Amino acid sequence: MDDDERRRHVYERTHDPSRVLALSDGVFAIVMTLLVLEIHVPELRGGQTLRVALQEVRPSFVAFLISFVVVAISWAGHRDLFAHVRRTDRSLVWLNILYLLPLSILPFGAALISRYQSDPVALTMYGTLLVLMALTRLAMWLYATGRRPHLLYQGMDAQARRYGIAIIASPAVLNLIAVLIAHEMPQASLVIYGTVPVLYFLSILVSRSSVPPELAE
Amino acid sequence: MDDDERRRHVYERTHDPSRVLALSDGVFAIVMTLLVLEIHVPELRGGQTLRVALQEVRPSFVAFLISFVVVAISWAGHRDLFAHVRRTDRSLVWLNILYLLPLSILPFGAALISRYQSDPVALTMYGTLLVLMALTRLAMWLYATGRRPHLLYQGMDAQARRYGIAIIASPAVLNLIAVLIAHEMPQASLVIYGTVPVLYFLSILVSRSSVPPELAE
Amino acid sequence: MDDDERRRHVYERTHDPSRVLALSDGVFAIVMTLLVLEIHVPELRGGQTLRVALQEVRPSFVAFLISFVVVAISWAGHRDLFAHVRRTDRSLVWLNILYLLPLSILPFGAALISRYQSDPVALTMYGTLLVLMALTRLAMWLYATGRRPHLLYQGMDAQARRYGIAIIASPAVLNLIAVLIAHEMPQASLVIYGTVPVLYFLSILVSRSSVPPELAE
Amino acid sequence: MDDDERRRHVYERTHDPSRVLALSDGVFAIVMTLLVLEIHVPELRGGQTLRVALQEVRPSFVAFLISFVVVAISWAGHRDLFAHVRRTDRSLVWLNILYLLPLSILPFGAALISRYQSDPVALTMYGTLLVLMALTRLAMWLYATGRRPHLLYQGMDAQARRYGIAIIASPAVLNLIAVLIAHEMPQASLVIYGTVPVLYFLSILVSRSSVPPELAE
Repeated sequence: MDDDERRRHVYERTHDPSRVLALSDGVFAIVMTLLVLEIHVPELRGGQTLRVALQEVRPSFVAFLISFVVVAISWAGHRDLFAHVRRTDRSLVWLNILYLLPLSILPFGAALISRYQSDPVALTMYGTLLVLMALTRLAMWLYATGRRPHLLYQGMDAQARRYGIAIIASPAVLNLIAVLIAHEMPQASLVIYGTVPVLYFLSILVSRSSVPPELAE
Repeated sequence: MDDDERRRHVYERTHDPSRVLALSDGVFAIVMTLLVLEIHVPELRGGQTLRVALQEVRPSFVAFLISFVVVAISWAGHRDLFAHVRRTDRSLVWLNILYLLPLSILPFGAALISRYQSDPVALTMYGTLLVLMALTRLAMWLYATGRRPHLLYQGMDAQARRYGIAIIASPAVLNLIAVLIAHEMPQASLVIYGTVPVLYFLSILVSRSSVPPELAE
Repeated sequence: MDDDERRRHVYERTHDPSRVLALSDGVFAIVMTLLVLEIHVPELRGGQTLRVALQEVRPSFVAFLISFVVVAISWAGHRDLFAHVRRTDRSLVWLNILYLLPLSILPFGAALISRYQSDPVALTMYGTLLVLMALTRLAMWLYATGRRPHLLYQGMDAQARRYGIAIIASPAVLNLIAVLIAHEMPQASLVIYGTVPVLYFLSILVSRSSVPPELAE
Repeated sequence: MDDDERRRHVYERTHDPSRVLALSDGVFAIVMTLLVLEIHVPELRGGQTLRVALQEVRPSFVAFLISFVVVAISWAGHRDLFAHVRRTDRSLVWLNILYLLPLSILPFGAALISRYQSDPVALTMYGTLLVLMALTRLAMWLYATGRRPHLLYQGMDAQARRYGIAIIASPAVLNLIAVLIAHEMPQASLVIYGTVPVLYFLSILVSRSSVPPELAE
């Protein structure tokens, strides 16, 4: 092995994405699973039945469900991006960590809206976390797909890149609106947080059926 | 590398199951380990000994044991399925996430029957989680093995497919019965939840001894 | 690819150890990290300084340290065994899950001796977990290395096998003694739990220096 | 395969770093995510608004942020080291476990300064953990890069080795100073813990721009 080959080997190893994925999948799995810890088993008060007591846990359950789906969508998006990523440079590694930051705070946000589901401040904080998750994910997408061909397996055409931006930005815009109206219409704000994932799935269905079958195999 | 080859490479990378397995194994490992957090160290009340106090923790311990084995069986079944899966398309990825949903709620279910082990509502919720875990696992099995040869390493014959359905559906039926009788016979319901894993092992033993030795190596 | 080749490929995939290791490493990592959750930040009572209050956390810290090292030793032993394991059959998979069971209960055991560090019942339960971890690990070792050449990369000679048994059984015997004397001499029992890991390291040092240098590279 | 080849295969498998990385990435991911559990959702006291109540959570949030970044930097450093590591011997495995020890205690340290952010004892303990993380990381670096060519993919020149030492030691020295002044100037101590990660990033930026572009690709 000559010097050039050696330098190339070092370069490949130090830019290998595998540990970035291992850390990220770990954080995704833990956040998904920690969320349930915010659903507390209720204590029965004088004469109360468990059925009635569990009604009070309902907001926790709604917060759990929304957050679980948000994390799942983020993970699927992360997987879609990194299916194209061949190498991670220092900037991409740190953009990824930046992206893990709001993600790992999400269990706190979920706990906050579990406890104060109609408080504008709680709804603002939760939505801000969702928007930050989208912004950091967008930064990663823009960096990785933006004229840095050595990071990708192969160049991405402008259309695919814009589609990727749209798929991240659209829910973020809706969540941002939810944040902005949280003080006037807290109920509407919560409804938006819960509706966005549903819309996301519909958009995926539409986008899939528009793909020519011979390409979609 | 020509265009066709490139398209194929992208296709393989975006359908690679490895991150689906990484996320799933993470969730399995965390759920298995979080379950123990529901067994609380008892505080001694006036003159009580630790031995007596630990008796009160027994329901938590039973809930832990049943849930641990349920998660372990689910993991083993997940591993058995994905040993055949060569590629994961978007639907399989989302069926897998759907499957992780009741799994990640299981620690709450276990906490519920730890605290209210003879309450029909608690037993109904716990059993419902078990049935949902089976249904989502069945959906994955049916989707992956159903005339989608590009998802599997090789076609699965009808008998192996039916065997896979039976191994998922049989415990689900028993658990469904336990849910349905929870209000009339809560004690019997809990006994069923604890017995099903034992039956599962017996059925595995039987199914193994019926395999010709030259194939079983 | 002919039928024989296909059957062999299926066989290899269904016996691949990688997911067994992924689940196990996940459980090891989580148990190691959950242990610290049992060290609670003390609340200061009237006029107490933090330094004094932290003294009361000391038993938690001792329980954490012992348990952390116990888990680390178990992981290192698991890694040493699976460095030889080429294939995992159904029995080995379930022996491994059986082994993860006492491991995942260890945080409860650690919490118990944190709270009741001189109570014989707490010390008995903790030690029983340590003994069960050793027994299940021993069962895995005996199964994998016992005349099942298809499970290993290459046969293990009788001496290496006996050495593996000794390295698992010796600490188990000491911990069993600690369990048996817990009611008469609880303090000695705790000392043994803390000393065994130290002895383990010394034995490793001795065993290493007895290896001829050309083999040890 | 002759005997020599066999022995070499065993040697490679028992020295393979993959499970060391799996365990470490698991611990990193869990610690990163557990940190948020120390930010508690506040309970409103008579007439208090959530906005005011959240102010009281601010110290928890600061402790979380500092700790998250500290763990992220440690992970990035661990990844940088192990990009060069081809084989792990028993000493490196145990040095790595030693390094995971203060890391896994960090959530307790973060909880401590969340609750007692101006108490010198809490600040001393937190800083000591940071220094221990640096010392154990330094020990790993010195061991792996110190005249043990069989552990690395290729030899490391003295300059790269010294650079690696500096990048670990410099923040450690600053944190050590923060520990030493914690009793006289607790506020300054906390500021240092928060500033060190920022300085680290600036130093990375400088070090990057000093690399010749043809080498940095």
